[in-house]
Parts: sequence; C-alpha cells; structure tokens
Amino acid sequence: MMMLGTSFVGFSRGAHVGPYSSAINPTSQEILDPPYASPSAEEVESAVQLAAKAFPVYRNLPAATRAGFLRAIASEIEMVADDIAARGCAETGLPEARLRGETGRTLGQLRLFATMLDEGTWIDARIEHAQPDRTPLPKVDLRSMLRPIGPVVVFCASNFPLAYSVAGGDSASALAVGCPVIVKAHSSHPGTSEIVAQAVIKAAQLCGMPEGVFSMLYGSGVTVGSSLVRHPLIKAVGFTGSHKGGRALMDLAAARPEPIPVYAEMSSINPVIMMPDVLAQKAASLADGYFQSLTLGVGQFCTNPGLLLLPKGSESEFVATLKEKISSAASATMLNAGICQAYQESTAATAAHPGVTTIRSNQCAAPGQAAPVVFLCEAETFLSSSALSDEMFGPASLIVTGSTEQLLAIAEAVEGQLTASIFGTEADFASAGVMLEILERKAGRLIFNGFPTGVEVCHSMVHGGPYPATSDGRSTSVGTMAASRFTRPVAWQNTPDAFLPDELKESNPLGIPRLIDGKLH
Amino acid sequence: MMMLGTSFVGFSRGAHVGPYSSAINPTSQEILDPPYASPSAEEVESAVQLAAKAFPVYRNLPAATRAGFLRAIASEIEMVADDIAARGCAETGLPEARLRGETGRTLGQLRLFATMLDEGTWIDARIEHAQPDRTPLPKVDLRSMLRPIGPVVVFCASNFPLAYSVAGGDSASALAVGCPVIVKAHSSHPGTSEIVAQAVIKAAQLCGMPEGVFSMLYGSGVTVGSSLVRHPLIKAVGFTGSHKGGRALMDLAAARPEPIPVYAEMSSINPVIMMPDVLAQKAASLADGYFQSLTLGVGQFCTNPGLLLLPKGSESEFVATLKEKISSAASATMLNAGICQAYQESTAATAAHPGVTTIRSNQCAAPGQAAPVVFLCEAETFLSSSALSDEMFGPASLIVTGSTEQLLAIAEAVEGQLTASIFGTEADFASAGVMLEILERKAGRLIFNGFPTGVEVCHSMVHGGPYPATSDGRSTSVGTMAASRFTRPVAWQNTPDAFLPDELKESNPLGIPRLIDGKLH
Repeated sequence: MMMLGTSFVGFSRGAHVGPYSSAINPTSQEILDPPYASPSAEEVESAVQLAAKAFPVYRNLPAATRAGFLRAIASEIEMVADDIAARGCAETGLPEARLRGETGRTLGQLRLFATMLDEGTWIDARIEHAQPDRTPLPKVDLRSMLRPIGPVVVFCASNFPLAYSVAGGDSASALAVGCPVIVKAHSSHPGTSEIVAQAVIKAAQLCGMPEGVFSMLYGSGVTVGSSLVRHPLIKAVGFTGSHKGGRALMDLAAARPEPIPVYAEMSSINPVIMMPDVLAQKAASLADGYFQSLTLGVGQFCTNPGLLLLPKGSESEFVATLKEKISSAASATMLNAGICQAYQESTAATAAHPGVTTIRSNQCAAPGQAAPVVFLCEAETFLSSSALSDEMFGPASLIVTGSTEQLLAIAEAVEGQLTASIFGTEADFASAGVMLEILERKAGRLIFNGFPTGVEVCHSMVHGGPYPATSDGRSTSVGTMAASRFTRPVAWQNTPDAFLPDELKESNPLGIPRLIDGKLH
Repeated sequence: MMMLGTSFVGFSRGAHVGPYSSAINPTSQEILDPPYASPSAEEVESAVQLAAKAFPVYRNLPAATRAGFLRAIASEIEMVADDIAARGCAETGLPEARLRGETGRTLGQLRLFATMLDEGTWIDARIEHAQPDRTPLPKVDLRSMLRPIGPVVVFCASNFPLAYSVAGGDSASALAVGCPVIVKAHSSHPGTSEIVAQAVIKAAQLCGMPEGVFSMLYGSGVTVGSSLVRHPLIKAVGFTGSHKGGRALMDLAAARPEPIPVYAEMSSINPVIMMPDVLAQKAASLADGYFQSLTLGVGQFCTNPGLLLLPKGSESEFVATLKEKISSAASATMLNAGICQAYQESTAATAAHPGVTTIRSNQCAAPGQAAPVVFLCEAETFLSSSALSDEMFGPASLIVTGSTEQLLAIAEAVEGQLTASIFGTEADFASAGVMLEILERKAGRLIFNGFPTGVEVCHSMVHGGPYPATSDGRSTSVGTMAASRFTRPVAWQNTPDAFLPDELKESNPLGIPRLIDGKLH
C-alpha cells in the first residue's frame, strides 16, 4: 500500500510542507516511514470549507444512501485488513489478534449504524395532526425529527487506533446522521490512520458522496486541533483522550462566539465492589477474573478497573490470589513512550503515598513496557487523599478495604465514572440497596457480576458518564444512542406533504416507527 | 391569599432579612406589597442541600407517582387562578385574558408531561438479551433508559409569568423526569410567583413528596442566581431571557470545576419570507396577519416576527396596508420599565440607521408603553450592517426588500433562530428549494403560511434553535421533547430482574414501548 504522509483535504492530498512527525514502533523504538507532514493553515481552512460545502448536500441524501456509504466504508476497510494489522502492530505494539479484533469491531460499528438508519426509530419522528376546529384556538399540523448539526471534528484516540479513530464510533455516528467529518489523526498511529482514511475516501468516491464529506488532518492538537475547534463552521467535537486534553477542548469550545458541544471521553477509574457473601464463596475465581480485566490490553482501556472496594475482613483470599497472579505476570509494551512514562510516574506516586502498600510489582523486561501492579490501603487513607482517585492509565489498581459505611462513603466520594461494577450473590444484592443507588448516580453503566472491560457495540450500550468520565454524561460514545450527539430536533409546521422529509410524509414511505398524536405507530 | 414576601426553602419560608425589592405595577407605577426579601447565603445553601437530599428519593419514585404530583400541582394552581389573574395583571400589565390563557397553558403543560410519563416512550427503554453462546465472545444482557441528572435551577422569564416561570415548562420537565427544582423568581412578578409556589408546595405535601423537591428563591440574578449556578450540587440550568444574561450563565457553568448544561433561550428575530406569487394574490390579508403577530402581547414574545424579507418589486401593497394598520394601532403597556426603555433605545437606533426608513411609528399614550413600529431598508443596507440583525424586543419589525439572490444571502447571513416562516403558493414553494434548505439549517421550527407567534405545547414542538436563539439547539423548551434536557442514559448489565427498574424488567410491568434487540415492541 502506497503511503504518502500527507493530510486528506477532501478528495485531494496535502502538500509536503511540514513540520513533520513520524510514528515510532514502541517495541523496537524504530522510526517508521513515511514522515507525516502537518497541514498548512490553508489546508486546514480548505478542509473546513469543503465540509461546510458538502453539508447541505450530504444532509439531504436519503438515509438509505448514507447507510450504503457506511457499508461501503466497512467493505473498503475490510479489504485492507492485512495492511491495517501489519502497520497497526508496528505503530502500537498491540498484538495482531487485537488489531484484527478491533478492525472487526469497527466494521461492526459502521454496519450497526447502517442498520439503525434502515430501522428509523433513532430519528424520533413525531407527527401531530391539525385540528382546525379546536377551540379556543385551532391546532396546527406539526411534525418533527432529528437533523444533523453540521461539520464535526473527531480527534483520534491513542488506545483505539481503529474503533475510536478515523472511521471509529464518532465518525460513524456523525456520518450516519448526515454530518461531514474532519478527523484529526493521532500522532501515535498516523500510518494506520492513512490506510483507513484511504478506504473512507475510496468509499466516498465509489458512492458519489460530495467532496468534503470526509477529510483527515495530521499535525499537532495544539495548532491544527485548536484551529479546527475554534473554526466558526465547525459545529461539534468528538474526543477520546486525557482529562487535560479534553478539558482544554471543552474550554476552547465554550469560549467561542458560538459555543459548540464537545463530547470528550476522558478518564475513569471504574470502581468495582465485591460483597462479603460472594467473596466467601469464590474469592479465588474473582481474583483471577479481576487480574484478566486489569491486564487486558496492558490495562490501556478506559474501562480498566482502577479501584476495587472490599469489605474489611473478607479480602485475604482474594488479595493472596491476586498477588500470586501478578507475581507471574510478564510486562508488556505500552502504546507509546508518553503513556509509558505517565504510567511509571502515576504508579510511583501511589507507591510512595503514606498508608499505601504495594501488594506486588514486577520489573519491566524492556524499555517502553509496563508491569501490572496492585496497591492496597484502608478506607481512611483513601478518603483523606484525593490523589488516590487519580487514574493510573495502565495495568494498575488500588484495593481499598473498609466497613460497609466506609465503602458507601467512598462510593459517594468518587467522581463521575464510565462504569461501576458490583459482585454479589442475590443475598448480597438484597442488602446493597444504598450502594446500588449511589453507583447508579455515579456511572453510565452499572455491571452486575462482571468486569468493566469489554464494551458491547449495540443499541443499549451507554459508554459515557458524569463528568469527569466524560464532558457530557447525556451521551454515549459507543452504540447507536450516539446518534443524538450530532443532531438537533427540527419541527415543520403546516408543511405541504411534498415539502416534508420522507420520514414525516403522511404516507410514511420509509415505513419507520413514528409517534403520531402521542402514540407510537 | 396570604403573601409573605420570602423565599421557599423546601417546606419552610425564608427569613425577612433583605435586601428587599418590590414589584411595580407597570401601568400605574404603583409599588406593590409585600416587599420581597432576598434569601441569605445560608438559605440558598439550605435549598440546595435539601434538593440534593431529596434527589435520591424523588428519582426513585414510580413514574406514576411523579405524574400524580404534576397533576396535583396543576389542580392546586387551578384553584388559585383568580388570585393569579389579579396579581399577574397588576405585576405585568398584561390583560386578564392573557393571564388566564397562560395559566391554562401552564396547567396543560403539567398534565401533558404527566401523560408522557404514563405513555413511557420518552424514557427510551432499550433491551438487548444475552447470547451466552455467541462466538468469539458471549453477549451480555444489557438494558438502558434515561435517568434524571440531579437538582436543576430554573430562572423565571419576565415575559411569561406562568408558562416559563415557577411551574412552567422547565420546572415541569425537570420534575417529570425526577429532578428536584430550585426556581429563581423574576423580580418583575414576585407575587404571582409566590402564589404559584404556594400551590406547588401544597401539592408536594399532599402527595408526600420529599422536602427539597421544590424550592423558590427571590433575590438578584447576579448574587443568588450566580451562587446557585456555581454550586457543585446543581447539575443543570434552565433560563429564558436576554442574550447577555443567558451567555453569562453559560460562561459561568462552563467555567465550573464540573461544567453543567445550560438551556438558555435568549433572542430571536424570527425571519419571515413572503414569495412573489402569494404576495400578488393576497398582500392585504398577509399584512393584516403580520400586524396581528407583530403586536400580539405588545410584541413581547420570543417568537415575535422581527425581520420580514420581501422580493423587491412585490412589496408595495403589503407595505401600504401594514402602514395603515400601524397608524391606527394604540400603544400598550410593556412588562416593566427596563424592557420599555430597551425597546425605545433599540428602535431609536434602527430609526437612526443610515438607509433605514421608518414606515410608521406612533406616539405612546403613557409612560411605560410601546407603540408598534415598522422599518424598511434594502438588502444592501441590511447585509452591510450586523446591527440591523439585533433583536428589538417589542412590537418592532424591519422589512428588507431585495432580489432572490439577495434574500438568499440574507437568510444565510442571519444567526440561529427559534423559527423561520415562509409564505407562498405551491408554485412559490416549488421554486424555493434553496431558501427552504437554508431556513431549515437556521431554525428550530420551519413554518409554512403561518406566523411565528403561537407555540403549541405538544410532542412534536421544537422551541429551540441554533445559537444565539438558544444556548443549545439540541433541545426544546416547549413540549415533551424537553424531557431529554435533564436526563442522561444509564445502562444495566447482567442485572437480576429484581434489581432492574420497572421500565426494564423482562415482563414489562408498565407496558411501555421498548426497543428490544433492535426492534420496537
């Protein structure tokens, strides 16, 4: 596959003007070709102008046409899955099976959004018929549905080079609902991004999409990213990354003359709580499951379990088993040097925290690697230090033991989370009403007898949660509910049938579910 | 009815500590008793703490119980409709019929939200069953629905003392979905607000609601309002008022350690476009309709038509008729002295603008009154001055004439709007594709052959629009779609049936529509 190292500005490629940056193989530290050129200010402007020009055309294509485009993107990506796997492994240090699995998930996401377009519930079509004879005032005919808001900027994630990147969830949901997308590529995996962007452009051309429906820009977040977020023609932002980066984008968007929504997924320690009865019954197998979840993908998941609450006195077998598992765990390569350094620093800070014991940590076998580590402290220690709530991105976890009251206080004290998990028997749950109530207020997804890693892409997934897990807990970045991110409702009043969108025409030509005069049909 | 002049802090009344402010009858300039005391910082804190304490209880009440509470509020307000009409007229200068009509609308809103709770579609219940045998990975059982986000602050509007105030749309939608409400009363109609708040509290007590489900605070927006918006336990804000006030709240909320959503409805000039064919057929009746819409409620509606676009050469009969109507129009009392002064200033600025002709303006018969006024200019003038797009809140309108291309340029140049209206015959509409496309991108509601005033409270109403019409065009402040304002989705994974909310239990005990495995049932 031909790799050019330049941005995608509509259907054209950018110039080789620089500055340049290159991907680095985190396993071998080798610098990977080609170097990637930062786009010029004119190229950034051109990508935005093309997106704005594409919007009135793209938004008015039939839903079925957009569904066909999503499916074409999936097919084109599928055809280059080998290239993606090879380049992706080199750029991220992730194993090939993970790259192939994530490619499959990305295809699945695109196709699920296409299915959603076919089915039609998502558009929230509502019709209320006129009542010309109503007193004291006649009632007008009023119909509403969701419409796209405009060009969207999507920032790629370092830890999901496919599923949260170029053609990942945010791009799929924006394209599905009718918004052009400008992707800001991540510097950790520019080559993987180039391969996927080529597939998207090929699909756009095959399907006759307007130029500008998709562009992808390289360059830094501070210059290229900021100028995109500040641009008056950009109407929303999707981001997956650090709290610091996400908050900077939120602040930038809120300070615009016209503020725009930012959907940032930022940080989460995903508390897990195990109840006494279940611990008495199967502490060893719970420890094994916890270890698997903690170390999956070298802990580089937003749903990695970073905080475990155990009832004081019930923890010994669990902790002993987990210690044994960690003792024999190998270190593994992290996504990039920056993430690895942050992991070493955050775990060192926790290890040095007064009152915290390191259960077990191994040496790393090579530079750029992380070894799993688990810490232990008492509830008093945790509750008296906000630093212990900070995310340690990687295979690290803190176990806190305490009384029932203390664990409730901890659950109440933690900030917004993507997930909260509770393990228990029916008897445990029956006594956990207050804990369940607190957890549901804190998280986007409440998991019973399961670990937080593993996010199903489906209609009922909520991968979001109160701040600072995300910028906006009213939304999700996984699953079809994400369609609401890049839309706003529009109402048509007293509109002749010929001038209504198909979704709202009286004869329901698309055969979609609609709320008619207050009842679903 | 007993009027105390103090805030409602849960089920208690605030102390008489001051500072005080009094309502002024805008017709007679009489100062109305009682003086209203600003709450102390402790009272503000107490209202917030009570709301936060009520939240875990209130959110978990069955939807039917919350529906009963909404209906009880409506009944209690209905019982004091005479008091509301008397005090409301004195405080706002609005005629009694308007006060009674707006009371009826407020009751209707509360009852519509109760109906919405009974029907259940709004909660967006989704179920996906487990597939334990799925390869390569088993699928978990996942269920989701909307849940309330927490205590909400609602700022009352000056121009709707009932429908957008104490028990108005935002309060009704927040209470419906399970959020406690703290109302910040408007200084223009404190007595009307006290009567309504008494009714709400009486309903809360009759229905056994937790204390703190509703509070109402007097005092200034700058001190009391800001401290509420900054409070960490407040999770969302509803506001109807000026652009300046709304933007200040947006900025305050965005700068919090935990940013929260602000739903501010701010300003709109509601462009109306009339096409050549329809103007040739019935210019006089269109002018009559425009005059009625312009002067309704002394023009003090967010949907007042402030900008009229006419094809150059087709305007003469329309303008002549409108001039005649205005010549014989009486002036009328505005809501308060501040609004009246702003109206005089903004219309004087337009009158003095180079290139703008005043078609007709009358003298005001008394202080505090406004007379309708209509201005005329050419497209070039309008396009070269952003000041002419500023809202003149009151019965004032600017007519702009131009070529088809110029009117398209104007439509593209205007900012986000609550509404856009187009008048035409079928032949007109058939040639208006580009105009319709632009208008739909600019507004929340697109009206055919109708004026923007008159907002139906129903399921398909969109009373929102792109910034600066509102802070957040993804929402509406009228109709049941507003239920999404104060909610976020939550997913339950692998949850035993007994611990699921009724809405998600396998047997569907509430009989609500649900999206099950991708299909509506």
